[in-house]
Amino acid sequence: MKLEEIRERIDHVDRELLSLIEERLDLGLRTRAHKGDVADSEREKVVISRARHTKLGLIEPDFAERLFGEIIDQSKRKQREVPHLVAFQGDHGAYSEVAARGLVPAGAYIPCVSFDEVVRGVEQGYFDRGVVPVENSLEGAVTAVNDLLTTTSLKAIGEYHVRVRHCLLAAPGTDYRDIRTVFSHPEALSQCRGFLARNKLEPRPFYDTAGAARMVARDTPRAAAAIASQLCAELHGLEIIKEGVEDDSSNSTRFLMLSRDVTQSAGDKCSIIFSTAHEAGALFAVLGLFAQAGINLTRIASKPLRSEPGNYAFFLDFEGTEKEPSIAEVLKKMEDMTVTMKYLGSYPAANGDKVEGKR
Amino acid sequence: MKLEEIRERIDHVDRELLSLIEERLDLGLRTRAHKGDVADSEREKVVISRARHTKLGLIEPDFAERLFGEIIDQSKRKQREVPHLVAFQGDHGAYSEVAARGLVPAGAYIPCVSFDEVVRGVEQGYFDRGVVPVENSLEGAVTAVNDLLTTTSLKAIGEYHVRVRHCLLAAPGTDYRDIRTVFSHPEALSQCRGFLARNKLEPRPFYDTAGAARMVARDTPRAAAAIASQLCAELHGLEIIKEGVEDDSSNSTRFLMLSRDVTQSAGDKCSIIFSTAHEAGALFAVLGLFAQAGINLTRIASKPLRSEPGNYAFFLDFEGTEKEPSIAEVLKKMEDMTVTMKYLGSYPAANGDKVEGKR
Repeated sequence: MKLEEIRERIDHVDRELLSLIEERLDLGLRTRAHKGDVADSEREKVVISRARHTKLGLIEPDFAERLFGEIIDQSKRKQREVPHLVAFQGDHGAYSEVAARGLVPAGAYIPCVSFDEVVRGVEQGYFDRGVVPVENSLEGAVTAVNDLLTTTSLKAIGEYHVRVRHCLLAAPGTDYRDIRTVFSHPEALSQCRGFLARNKLEPRPFYDTAGAARMVARDTPRAAAAIASQLCAELHGLEIIKEGVEDDSSNSTRFLMLSRDVTQSAGDKCSIIFSTAHEAGALFAVLGLFAQAGINLTRIASKPLRSEPGNYAFFLDFEGTEKEPSIAEVLKKMEDMTVTMKYLGSYPAANGDKVEGKR
Repeated sequence: MKLEEIRERIDHVDRELLSLIEERLDLGLRTRAHKGDVADSEREKVVISRARHTKLGLIEPDFAERLFGEIIDQSKRKQREVPHLVAFQGDHGAYSEVAARGLVPAGAYIPCVSFDEVVRGVEQGYFDRGVVPVENSLEGAVTAVNDLLTTTSLKAIGEYHVRVRHCLLAAPGTDYRDIRTVFSHPEALSQCRGFLARNKLEPRPFYDTAGAARMVARDTPRAAAAIASQLCAELHGLEIIKEGVEDDSSNSTRFLMLSRDVTQSAGDKCSIIFSTAHEAGALFAVLGLFAQAGINLTRIASKPLRSEPGNYAFFLDFEGTEKEPSIAEVLKKMEDMTVTMKYLGSYPAANGDKVEGKR
């Protein structure tokens, strides 16, 4: 191997090292809610002693101790400093993290495997906020999330629109003419079908857009690229070969931020979920209340209730806050006209789509 | 996630971190032969600046600088300290590394992808020693290696026998009754066929024994184990569920250590490679010289020559050293009786099989 080749491999290892250390710091933040004190000297001793005793020939005990000492110090510093743990579903760089960063600029963003882990984690106090996608302009409601919203005790305290602007990402120095296959989530691949066909690129389904970007950065498969967010390029050190490769540029996703308690004083938009008796005109009567009071609806959606087959939950978003007398009155009247009625929260309306690149 | 689960994941990340850092130090050692001086301040600046500028949210610039400063210092220390770079084929923990450690106790052991990389790397001065398997008691000659020996300018300066004692390895805490599938190199799996059948374990081919152990340590697939060396257990922090799971306990591999120049003064065993004219009795006449001089042969093997179809190379190992007059005379006579004749080297004979565990 030539010196240049060895150094390319070292650079690759360094990127992986940084991403692993970030993962370790992520996990460290997750322990915060479980401990009385950030420091746990017994545990630190175990970690350092294990590192000192590695059999890997080039890692000397004192070096291992200094290294893990630094990592543990940074972990404790972050556990003390970071005000809010913001959970999202997906790998680092997912569009959900784009929304999380937009909603909580000074937070720490914790990747979760499922929407369930996000919501239950906030409920149980392990995370301070959860950011979940509610609806996408092309694909419609995110069913799994709306299911969770009907059962959670959490409150909506914010919303965010992400304009989904897919990027074609590849390892630095890749010649775009060499790219043959493109990894991404099947939904993202289907949203870029035209682009892929025009450029004779073979789509390869992957479990996640951000996961595909991470894999391309890590394993640098030959002649391959990923379709994912611009944030993925930044986080994983990938090159943006082309921005906005989606066929329909109107693709945007709306996210809600969930919290155990209501934190801000005033919102100007509300979300509620309710169900009515299964009889003709029940929903119409409820909607009539809003019309008469001149309240502007921004979303209505029905969804079969998992727990009660044949019955439906209705999701209603509208402008205003429950502090306005006219709205308070409507909500009060609704209580008699519905079977279940849940006030999800009031939050500042996001004014239009945020373009993902403009964080 | 409970605190215990989070900490298990942290422990897993820590193991991966150590193994990545070892890989980085391995690569650092490989740069040594390319540089006039171990330190290269321009390159160090680039590495540290890149780490400082990572977009990963929890890694602050100063922390990144301290961390990579430590790693670079350790890398330079090792480049200055380590006397010999010993190349072997396979991942860390391969039986070839067992032999390399036995032959050069204070070396640094550098994993290579192929036998070719080992031999060419020593030839070109990137490594100081190469350790390659020549023959296995069950599988016979290692053809690819013997091919390389016919063309290389390197000298054999040592030999080593590894008794191949396969171990069933699993992640710590694994209940052996839960194991269903076993990953390893197809050859190792076939050498343990009886054990696998008796225990109803499903064999799963993997590119390498040590690679399988590393994968099991890293990804901890459910209900899975690996078959590999005891060294793999030590290096990757795996538990030895059962030792000696090979069906035939006489399995052993003989390795040669190659070097650019002859380093030690006296050996008591020699290896030569020669070819004769393709006529009846040519080989017999050569062997007659050894018989008449009372020289004890320890190996004879023929191998079709790649470069000259129809012709053969003969590998001959025998006791003694070229410094003994009787042997010097035989070698001199041989020059007239052979078409090509290559003296591979003289080295101390390994006395019998070394049991892998007894390093």
